Amino acid sequence: VTGIGDDCAVLRVPPGHELLVTTDFTIENVHFRRDWHRPELVGRRCLTRGLSDIAAMGGEPLAAFLSLAVSSDVPQKWVDRFLKGVLDLAAEFKVPLAGGDTAQSRAGIQADIVVVGSVPKGKAVLRSGANAGEQIYVTGELGGSAAALARLMELKPGGPEYFQHFSRHSHPFARVAVGRWLRQRGVASAMIDLSDGLSTDLDHICQESHVGAEIEAEAIPRAQVGKKPVALELALHGGDDYELLFTSAATVPSKIAGVPVTRIGRTTQSAEMRLIGVDGKVRLLKAGGWEHFQGNQKS
Amino acid sequence: VTGIGDDCAVLRVPPGHELLVTTDFTIENVHFRRDWHRPELVGRRCLTRGLSDIAAMGGEPLAAFLSLAVSSDVPQKWVDRFLKGVLDLAAEFKVPLAGGDTAQSRAGIQADIVVVGSVPKGKAVLRSGANAGEQIYVTGELGGSAAALARLMELKPGGPEYFQHFSRHSHPFARVAVGRWLRQRGVASAMIDLSDGLSTDLDHICQESHVGAEIEAEAIPRAQVGKKPVALELALHGGDDYELLFTSAATVPSKIAGVPVTRIGRTTQSAEMRLIGVDGKVRLLKAGGWEHFQGNQKS
Repeated sequence: VTGIGDDCAVLRVPPGHELLVTTDFTIENVHFRRDWHRPELVGRRCLTRGLSDIAAMGGEPLAAFLSLAVSSDVPQKWVDRFLKGVLDLAAEFKVPLAGGDTAQSRAGIQADIVVVGSVPKGKAVLRSGANAGEQIYVTGELGGSAAALARLMELKPGGPEYFQHFSRHSHPFARVAVGRWLRQRGVASAMIDLSDGLSTDLDHICQESHVGAEIEAEAIPRAQVGKKPVALELALHGGDDYELLFTSAATVPSKIAGVPVTRIGRTTQSAEMRLIGVDGKVRLLKAGGWEHFQGNQKS
Repeated sequence: VTGIGDDCAVLRVPPGHELLVTTDFTIENVHFRRDWHRPELVGRRCLTRGLSDIAAMGGEPLAAFLSLAVSSDVPQKWVDRFLKGVLDLAAEFKVPLAGGDTAQSRAGIQADIVVVGSVPKGKAVLRSGANAGEQIYVTGELGGSAAALARLMELKPGGPEYFQHFSRHSHPFARVAVGRWLRQRGVASAMIDLSDGLSTDLDHICQESHVGAEIEAEAIPRAQVGKKPVALELALHGGDDYELLFTSAATVPSKIAGVPVTRIGRTTQSAEMRLIGVDGKVRLLKAGGWEHFQGNQKS
């Protein structure tokens, strides 16, 4: 990257690669609350949202750009700690923060993160590549972030020890290495990151690929809180886990880049999503995903 | 562009080209006022800010991304007209709107525009390339946008006929064709777009290039309002004209891509900016540029 501080940042895209661009808002009282979330975590999650989109294409992040609008009542200390969260995670992923814009807002905090990445030409893993009769996989465990949020909504935070259980909420991490592995081996036919919740994001794959899906409730890897798994509803519909959901006709190992990978069902020729319950009963599964605090719609 | 509606947009950068990325906030009551500016103009200026940054590097715009946060009190009609302004200008420049994000804001309207462009490898025109003893040029006329704003601040809008005089304010247009011409011929040693005002943006070139500047007040092409030129102060410090400011040791024609180009001074070995007044007196010129309504700082 050159040109930082110039009219534009100048980036070099590796030869034979295509460019990936993703942009995500992080808005106070929609995506976080100042009285609930440490500023470092807000910054960390802000960048994770962008990196996770790059991961879901099987891409490599090249650079990030942060636009930040803050109202005059927000302490500079908050902004400094927010930026520390962004920059620490950028360093973990070796992604330079190459520019952005700052402005004063009328109320609260609005951040827009842009992540630019690259992928070998024609190799981006789209949402539209799934075929009927393939297996459906997820990385990691689901519902942990939603469980933390549910707990916060009950206003029973319960101290830092308790929050260690909610690692996906308190320490979100984009699955870039898993996405890269799957893209390099051509293993995933379609992929998406779980930002809005399994049911909603699976619905995106089904719609774009013109397939249906059959999910086995018992197979869904649920996050543990203490020794108890989170409620199935949270694992099905809870957002902000930043795990990867993908389809494959190939043999998929149970661990990729150190991350557990679990088969949770299969694609079908039907236009519907179905859930095979723990009781063996089949239910219609609808996109009932995460609506954030006040509703958020991804374009 | 493919992948619209996927996790990322997928773009192809022409072979042998580098990537340009710029991001600019447009915030209600900072960059516009809903009671002053038509929504189409707000949208048009929002995209112009990004295109103008690409123009200032001598680049070609490839795609735009719009993130838009709107509070519940903003009528859908306003949003539709704002988007029309963005899309109409995008069509004029043949730049696809390739993605973005939408969210609900706590107060007012916040838009973040990202424009991605390309430039042949090593050919981006930076702010840092000026040498002492070169000539300084601007495109078009200066101060017209600031004059319109000054008039609005007096709360004497005066009807649409009056505003036809303020074409740079009511119809901002990025100088992409001029920037391309200058880059293709290697004519400009350093370049910036006039978004913050001549004195501030010239100071950026001086700082980055380690040169000084001597500007001739009489030579500055001032916008006309009716038959009268705008005040020199507005042409010197007024922002949002989106003209190009560049330095050159070569012969520069008086018109490039149909746009008048005017020599306004020269670079010097001094570390200062000087203004030679209409009275022949030499004054120290300081960056006294546009602060928008409430202050805005570009990173």
